[in-house]
Parts: sequence; structure tokens; C-alpha cells
Amino acid sequence: MTPGARQEEDQMANRVGVIGGGQLARMMIPPAVHLGIEISVLAEAEGSSARLAATQVGDYHDVDVVLDFARTVDVVTFDHEHVPQQVLTALVDAGVPVHPGPSALAVAQDKIVMRQRLTELGLPVPDWAAVHDASELEAFLADHGGRAVVKTARGGYDGKGVRVVSAAHEADDWFGALAEDGNGGALLVEELVDFRRELSQLVARRPSGDIVPWPLVETVQRDGVCSEVFAPAPSSAGRLADLADEIARTVAERLDVTGVLAVELFETTDERLLINELAMRPHNTGHWTIDGSTTSQFEQHLRAVLDLPLGDTDCHRPWSVMLNVLGGPATGSMADRLPALMADQPAVKVHDYGKEPRPGRKVGHVTVVGDDLDEAVFRARAAVEFFTD
Amino acid sequence: MTPGARQEEDQMANRVGVIGGGQLARMMIPPAVHLGIEISVLAEAEGSSARLAATQVGDYHDVDVVLDFARTVDVVTFDHEHVPQQVLTALVDAGVPVHPGPSALAVAQDKIVMRQRLTELGLPVPDWAAVHDASELEAFLADHGGRAVVKTARGGYDGKGVRVVSAAHEADDWFGALAEDGNGGALLVEELVDFRRELSQLVARRPSGDIVPWPLVETVQRDGVCSEVFAPAPSSAGRLADLADEIARTVAERLDVTGVLAVELFETTDERLLINELAMRPHNTGHWTIDGSTTSQFEQHLRAVLDLPLGDTDCHRPWSVMLNVLGGPATGSMADRLPALMADQPAVKVHDYGKEPRPGRKVGHVTVVGDDLDEAVFRARAAVEFFTD
Repeated sequence: MTPGARQEEDQMANRVGVIGGGQLARMMIPPAVHLGIEISVLAEAEGSSARLAATQVGDYHDVDVVLDFARTVDVVTFDHEHVPQQVLTALVDAGVPVHPGPSALAVAQDKIVMRQRLTELGLPVPDWAAVHDASELEAFLADHGGRAVVKTARGGYDGKGVRVVSAAHEADDWFGALAEDGNGGALLVEELVDFRRELSQLVARRPSGDIVPWPLVETVQRDGVCSEVFAPAPSSAGRLADLADEIARTVAERLDVTGVLAVELFETTDERLLINELAMRPHNTGHWTIDGSTTSQFEQHLRAVLDLPLGDTDCHRPWSVMLNVLGGPATGSMADRLPALMADQPAVKVHDYGKEPRPGRKVGHVTVVGDDLDEAVFRARAAVEFFTD
Repeated sequence: MTPGARQEEDQMANRVGVIGGGQLARMMIPPAVHLGIEISVLAEAEGSSARLAATQVGDYHDVDVVLDFARTVDVVTFDHEHVPQQVLTALVDAGVPVHPGPSALAVAQDKIVMRQRLTELGLPVPDWAAVHDASELEAFLADHGGRAVVKTARGGYDGKGVRVVSAAHEADDWFGALAEDGNGGALLVEELVDFRRELSQLVARRPSGDIVPWPLVETVQRDGVCSEVFAPAPSSAGRLADLADEIARTVAERLDVTGVLAVELFETTDERLLINELAMRPHNTGHWTIDGSTTSQFEQHLRAVLDLPLGDTDCHRPWSVMLNVLGGPATGSMADRLPALMADQPAVKVHDYGKEPRPGRKVGHVTVVGDDLDEAVFRARAAVEFFTD
């Protein structure tokens, strides 16, 4: 090979920069290592979950910091959806490939914008309204049986910024904060959906258009936080799976999402699917794919943002069960409990995010795959107990 | 949690230091990330295959360099078997846990020592002798049908330091080098085994004693280099698998091997198993475990050297096929060829070691798992052609 040829290859796009040093960035490291992709992380602080790949520590709100980081990579992607639009736009203006792009992320960043866009696209969502004051909220409550879900448009996650109310004054503090903010903002209010269970449909889409889904999964939330995931969702073959696939594809295409898209869904008691939330990045409901699918969501996300052909998403075994490990008052580090768990459950796959175990914080997860769902669930729950009892 | 408790946990042994920055060290990174193990690598040079985890660059022959490195970790293990005994001994004297230990590694470092120890243990090996000059080699040839395999005792790998001879003068250069060396060394000469095929039995052993094997695999060598691996070895259930398992367990226990042990075997035409080579580290014939087994050899090696309980080694699918990718005159970087391969073979798992593609150098591998061996072999070979045509 001539030096010239080598030089050209060195310029091939295989350097992915991730903004944010959380566990999603961390879990992109293993597939990057295997695929020969150079991964760099712009972390918020030293000692982040993704510290092994952190080449820079800085504030992602600062355009200059992010532009500096972007100069070291071929494409920028994200561990979270909180990078401000002006920073995203500055990257695009500087010629940096950004996946997902600013216009797609704008929909994920603001729940009211999301509801507006999904409604425009004719996609199924709960009844909703943007309410600017207590009287508008009161009117919505009166129309919806006296109870509803109120959400702040921005900044919520894992149950934060979400509240079930039966009287408008229960959101007074949030209205007060909006008034102080002075941006003329609103709260999102939604009907309290009568749902049978929650589902999640993940797909990946590359910039050139291909879309590959994983099987529809069932998710169990506890206190607003994803707690358990069963893949595939039991009794979901046929119409339900087809409908979820079609919804996720429509969202990905019409919003021009690139990378992994998670569409969280309610399955209603009258057999409809309604979109609850969107996430435009690898998602907690896709962690099972690391151990359960030919191509994990983290590998697929890297492929997608580099516009590489997407991988197969069939499952190793009929069932995969993923349970989150949350930090709690009684919980030491996961490392501390690992030997006992490993001795008891040699088939369980453990994922430790290398984070301080603050109460309620997601510090890791476990996955069990197998031929019998009940047994896999039993073993996964037994495994998590080693970390939480 | 009290500050005291946290301090104690910080001191838990979960920092693994790997001497050598090759692809074996590189492939330990993904399971370290998942298990929350802090991995550090002492690399030979900048830009090593394991560069993401390289915390230090230095000469592993230098006791001070290695002791410096060892102070940053809880246990030392290896990417290769070339660390000199005096360096290993200095580590042990300094109280550093070293796995595998010096006495086990001594057997892997010198092929004559290996043959002596295996013979003492009553394990099946080809007829062999340590020959100090041409006349001794001539005598061995006369006793073994006029042809034999001559090997240098040290430093050989991937077919280097191995030669089939039919006259003693064909090893004159090696005898000359021994004489110059002045250490009174010898060459190893072995009967040319009439074998049906080559097999490899991998096991992992932790310091406290537990041993867990993977299935026996078949390996195809080309020009002395591992080229293809089929897991499990076709038609190997029953007596053959039991025998290989027993041989590997005996080697691991009697030589006090810790971590992964690979026992390369000849299956003779008269249905015996003879030990060809030993390796005391993750091994090329175990790369299929990354995509084909519940616990990969790299995860198991980390568990073993930290004396953590070992993981299950059952297979995701009935067959796994691994093929090496070698650099060649016509081969550019793997990254260059990746898009075409991925488009054609979305189920193939690609592993790129991030190395310059020098001719004959192992630069990566591909793995295909499936229910049909022939189809998996076909697809894996088709995949490798994208890198080598």
C-alpha cells in the first residue's frame, strides 16, 4: 500500500464523538472496540461513567467547547438530549455531521413540540393540551374525568417533571416557575391513559434511509423509572408488533431521526397503541440487546451515525429479560456484591456503570436470556436482589 | 453508606493490569467495561491495538517499568507470554498478584520445558527429544522415519520457529544460533504426527481452584497460522470431548494455571489426542466465544485473574465459526472494506484490531453463529473475502 492510500484511509469516517459521559456513552465503547471505531467522549466531569473514552471534559452548553471537541471526530452523537439548539446549530454550520440532527432533537427536547408534531403526523397520542395557567388546566381536567397527567415541557426524565393531578392548584409551583422564566412557556397536560401495559419499540435509522427494528418489548415502570424489560413483549406477535413497527418507522422517517429511536407506547385496554415518549439515542428499554440480539443497540447506533449498513437484530434466544439496578440507601457498590451474585447465577450478564450508588440512581443492569420467560424473570430478579437487599 | 465503607470498597480488587498492548488486551476492554472492572494496559509502543486502555508505554523487560505499572493495579495479567522470569519474580516478590504465575508461565515460555513437564505428568504428547547438535537430530530422524518437526524452544509463534526437516543440516542455522548464544540450549524435535485434524480445548481456572471449560473446537491452520475455528468441533461429542476436557483440566491443575488456558491438540488417525501447544492467556481458538458463548474467553479471563466466580459457557447457537483476517499485499485497512461487507452480510460479527495491515499479520476476525455449520462456514468465508480479495 502506498503512503497516499494509507493517508486516504486514515481520513475515512470512523471517529465518533459522543457528547455526554453517562452509561449510554459508556456502553458504546465495547462495540466501538470491536468494530475498530475510534470513540471519544466529551464528559461533563472527571470520573464519568464513560471515563475510559473521555478525551475532553467540559460544558456542553458552551459552543466553543463543543466545537473544539467536534474538530477531533468525524461525526457527533449524544449520550442525552440536552444539548441546546444553538450549540447543535453551530456544529451544523461548522460542517460537522450531527446525528440525530438539530431538527429531530428539537422534537425530543420539548414534550409540547413532540405532541404537536406527532399530532400533525396523524400518529396516535393521548389527548393533550398546552396549558398556560391554572384555568386552562382546570378546563382540561373538567373535560377528562377530573384527573390528568401534567408534565414540564423540558428537562424531565425518569419520572421527574411528571405529576398526576386532580386539581389545577397541584401544578401551581410549575406555573409559578414558568411565569418567573418569562418565556411564555406552557405545561403539557395529557389524559390519564387507561393502559394494559407499557411497550417500547426501538428502531435504528441511518442518514441514507435504511431502518431496522428490534422486536417490540414490554416495559415495567416503577416510580416512573424503567424497572424491567421483557423481550419480545409477551403475546405481541402479529397486529400489535406490526402496528408498533409502523409507528416507529413513521416517526423515524417523518422526523428525520438518525441513530437509535425509542418509541415508548401505551397499550390501552381497548387495544390501541398510543405514543407516550420518544428518545433519540440508545434507550434503557434496549439494554437487553447487548446480550440478547445479534446487533446491540449500541453497535447499531454507531453504525447508523456513521451511515454504515445496519446489522441483523434477531435474538439469540426466545426470551431476554433486563432489570435495572438502582442505587439505594442500603446499597454499596455493585463491585462489592458481584462475587456473591456470580457464584449464585453464573449465566446472568452483569453491567456495572461505574457510578457512585446514590439512592434511586441507575447504577447498572442485569440481563438473562433463555427459552422460558418465567425462569428468566425469576433468575433476573434473584440477581438484582444481590445488589438491593 | 459511611465514608469508611466507601473507602473499603474502593480498595476492592477490580483493577486489572495487562502487560502487552496487542489484540488480546484490546478484547479484554469490552467485558471490563461491562463488569465495571478498571483495565489498564502497559503497551510496548504508542498506537497499540489496546491503546484505549493503555495507561503506560514501556519495555516489559525492564523490572522498574513493570513494577511502576503494577503499583496502579490490583492484579497483573498478560497479552502474551514473553515477560522474562526475573520480571515476573520481581512482581511476586513485591507482593503483586500475578496470573498466571511465574512457574506456570515458565512452562509456556519454553517448549522443551513444556514437553518435559507434560511427559512427567503422563499426558499424551508426540515423541520428542531435546537435541543439542546435528548428530542428535540425525539420530532422532533415523528413529522416526527420516522426517520430524524441529522447533526453537523460545520465541516462536504463528508458525515462526517451527520447521519440518528430513536432514539434520536443515537446522544448522538454529544450532549455530544456539552455539553463539552460549547458554547450552537445545532444539526441540518431535515426531511428525499423522493427524486427522487439529483441535483446541480452552478452560479457565481461578486461583481458588474452579475450572470451567468451553466446548472442544476444531481449528484449521494455514501456513502455521490459525485460520478457521469451528465450535464445537464436528463429531466430537462423547469420548473425544471428555478426553480433551480431562487433559486440559489436568494441565491447568498440575501446572497451577490461572486465567484462560488453551491446549492445542492433534487428533491422530488412530484416534488418540496428543498435546501440540499450550497457551496461558486468551487464545485465537477462543475468539468465537465473544459472539457465540454466554461468557467470552476475555470476560472469563478477567473473572479468573480477579478470582471471581466463573461464568456459564454454553453456546447461543448450535454452531459458531471464526475466521481470521490477515493483512496482505492487496489488503487496505479493514475500515475501508467494512461498508461493503456489512451491506452484504448483516449477521456477521466483525472484529477489527486497529492494527496496521502488514502482510500476514492478524488484523481482525469475523464470527458467524447459526443453526447450520455449512451455511455459517460459507457466510464467514464470504465475509473474509471482502477483506482479502
